Parts: sequence; C-alpha cells; structure tokens
Amino acid sequence: MKILVTNDDGIHAPGIQTLAGALRKVGEVAVVAPDRERSAVGHALTLHHPLRAVQLGADIFAVDGTPTDCVNLGIHNLLSFKPDIVVSGINRGANLGDDVTYSGTVAAAMEATLMGIPAFAISLVAQGPGTHYDTAAEFAARLALQIHEKGLPNDTFLNVNVPDLPCDSMLTSRITSQGRRRYEGTIVGKLDPRGQKYYWIGSAELSFLDLEGTDFHAVSRGHVSVTPLHLDLTNYTSFHVLRGWDLK
Amino acid sequence: MKILVTNDDGIHAPGIQTLAGALRKVGEVAVVAPDRERSAVGHALTLHHPLRAVQLGADIFAVDGTPTDCVNLGIHNLLSFKPDIVVSGINRGANLGDDVTYSGTVAAAMEATLMGIPAFAISLVAQGPGTHYDTAAEFAARLALQIHEKGLPNDTFLNVNVPDLPCDSMLTSRITSQGRRRYEGTIVGKLDPRGQKYYWIGSAELSFLDLEGTDFHAVSRGHVSVTPLHLDLTNYTSFHVLRGWDLK
Repeated sequence: MKILVTNDDGIHAPGIQTLAGALRKVGEVAVVAPDRERSAVGHALTLHHPLRAVQLGADIFAVDGTPTDCVNLGIHNLLSFKPDIVVSGINRGANLGDDVTYSGTVAAAMEATLMGIPAFAISLVAQGPGTHYDTAAEFAARLALQIHEKGLPNDTFLNVNVPDLPCDSMLTSRITSQGRRRYEGTIVGKLDPRGQKYYWIGSAELSFLDLEGTDFHAVSRGHVSVTPLHLDLTNYTSFHVLRGWDLK
Repeated sequence: MKILVTNDDGIHAPGIQTLAGALRKVGEVAVVAPDRERSAVGHALTLHHPLRAVQLGADIFAVDGTPTDCVNLGIHNLLSFKPDIVVSGINRGANLGDDVTYSGTVAAAMEATLMGIPAFAISLVAQGPGTHYDTAAEFAARLALQIHEKGLPNDTFLNVNVPDLPCDSMLTSRITSQGRRRYEGTIVGKLDPRGQKYYWIGSAELSFLDLEGTDFHAVSRGHVSVTPLHLDLTNYTSFHVLRGWDLK
C-alpha cells in the first residue's frame, strides 16, 4: 500500500511525524506538507503565485502552499508513485461539526477524493499542544488497512477525531454524523500604535450542540469518531419547496 | 429588507457594483468586500494576522481579508444593522459542480448560513471578463425578494449561476443538483532565472459531466441554475457499510 501523508499544521508538527511513523509499518509512505502552519485555510488552492517545493528526504517535501496545493503537487509532480490512499493529519485539535468546512486538514482529504483516491483526515481532540498522537496514529494505520482492503463508498472520505488518551485506554469507535456548532464568532477590535483600528478574528470557547449520533457527542464521551463526508452538498430535500417559487 | 453584499473578485469588480445597484431597488444595501481579488480561497478565515477595514462610503467597506472574513467582520463589527439576507457575487465566471468547495463566493454564503442568516451566491457563466452582469443582478433582486418573503430551508443556502445573456433573452430557471467536474488538474513546472524549480497550478479547460438535473446541464442549455446547498456533508447512506468494518 502506497500512502501520501499531508496536514495543515506544517511538516514539522508532531502530529504528522507520528502519523508517518505509524503508517510506515503498514505501507510505503511519502510526505508532502506545508512548510508552515496553514490552519483554517479551507479548500484553498494557490493560483496567484508560484509554489516551491523543498525536498527534505526520500519522498519528503515541504511546500509553501496550502494542504490542497500539497495533494495536487504531490500527486501530479513530486511523487514517483500514485498513492493508494491519502491521509491528512494528525491535526492538533479537533475538526468537528461545521468546522470541517474551514479545515485545511479535511480539505486535503476532499481534494484526494476529487482525484479519485480514497482518503481520510485525522485529528487529535486536544485543547493545548496534544499528548497522545500515538493513539491517533495507531488508529490511522488500522483504518488505512481497512480502507485499502474494502475501499470507500463513491465520492466519500472519512473525517476522524480521536480523544487525547493513552493507547491502552481501550477506545472504541463510532460512525457519526457531522455535528452542529453553536455559533459564537468573536472579533477583537483594537487600535495600533498609530491610532489606526484593526480587527482580529478570535476563537471563542468552541461549543457544539450535544446531539446524539454526532461527532461531538462521540468524542466528548471518549469514543473515536469516524464521520463519512461526501462531495455533494446538494440539499435534495428542499427541491420541492424551491420548485414552488416564482422565479421564472 | 436589509442586505449585506460581498464577493471574492474584490470590491472594485464590476459584478459587485452591478449587484449592489440592483439590490438597492429592493432594499437597504451595505457592501463589505475584499480589497482585491480573493478567488479559490475556499472557506478560509484569517487567523494569523490582523484585518484592516477601509470605509469607502456610507455602509461600504474594503477589507484586506477573505470573503468569509468580510461576512464575519461586517456582521459583528462594521455594520450598523444585522442583515436580513447576505448576497455574494456576482462572480466573474461560473461556480459549478465540485468547484463550489473552492469558491470564496460560495463560502461567504456558507458563513452567513452558519450565522443563521439566509444567503445566496451568484455567478456569471462567462469565460472572459463577462458582459451581462445586469441580467444576473436583476435575477438576484427577484430572488432576494422571494427569500425574504418565504425564507430558506434550515441550514440551506443557494448557489446561483446565470448565463451571460442579455436581460431580454427570457431566461428560465431550474432547481438543480451540484454537478461533477471531470478532474483535470494541470500544474506547470518551470525554472526561474536562477535555475530553481517552481510550480504553478493551472486551470485546464474546465469540463463537467453532462448529467441531467445538474447545475452544468442547466447553464449549458441557457437556463439559470439554482442549487440548494447545505452545511451537513455527512454521507448517511454509507453508515451501514462502515458499521460493518472492524475498527474496534
């Protein structure tokens, strides 16, 4: 099994290093990741300037772009093989609920799916720097083997969140739905030394609706959450309502 | 009706100016938009540096951030009112199929939806600079009135694509599903004047699968395409498959 590993915390983050190590036990691993942190970039592609790739080792590349750029560049140009699977992470901090749409980690898995390659994103549910990346890495290796053996449903990738607990804590997994964030955007407005106003988008204490069956519900009870996401955002159930509108 | 208008082509693009003009006939309009082009930024939030907003007129602000930043900053800090509806566009070029996940225009509507405000994104299906923004603007005004009157289904926003045709060409609209792109990523690799390699992500001639009922199918036959999108990316149909996996 040939595996491409990427992330959005940057190539030197502890999560990607632990992940690559665990995956090397089950397959051949290449790493193509951003040269620095690229959080909250969503599914962004760099179109307006050229990208550079620095080779740091055999099949290890740092790119000055987004996770989505890394998947593109890795598969089209940098790697000597086409991966059987793309794994993105281990993200420092959870990717739950609506936040998946902002996540560079999740977007990398989405990009691979668009290219027809099975993929998953994996995140450590930690508030600070995170401790037990090895627990998530071990789960990732097991999941990669299952995906390689069984394949994923069409146009579908997995978003995995693992509690920050020791390997021997007997975690169990749940197949979940994408939860719902309680929206609490906060923006700090301040004056710079020259008296000019500036704004900083802050992250309020994140909170989610505690709905049974969701990703948040599972991880907050100590389970690994595995959410199947797909590329089709269409809300088919609203067709009949909209067709009654007077739009011409 | 109070309307917040934004886009990803930048505040000086012809699309947003025509749009704001048409919407002023049906409501009170504020404009908060990026100070320059921010295409393909996806649902990106600026977290790593402060944002500046320059006031260009009554309720008109240019922000040095992404469309998602603009919606946040507009609603939380800049505007004197909470909008009843957010309209993003008129984008220069279509936003069809899987490409909606890259689109800053669509992401702005998604952000408003997360905040509980009805929203739609609107794009002109043009290859070059685009000609008939007035046709799309007129459709936007009519659609805004319908949304204000009837509301949108829960957690749902609309992605609208309008053919680049004159106002009097009697366009009809179709409620469509998100189409599927034929994946053709191209990356150009070149050497700079110092002999160092660089890469540029190119856009191949875009093509989509011509599936009946999709956004692409509608616009390529001269119809306005209206696609209801929602925030929940969960692929519920794959639950039974994944629950059979051996993950512990």
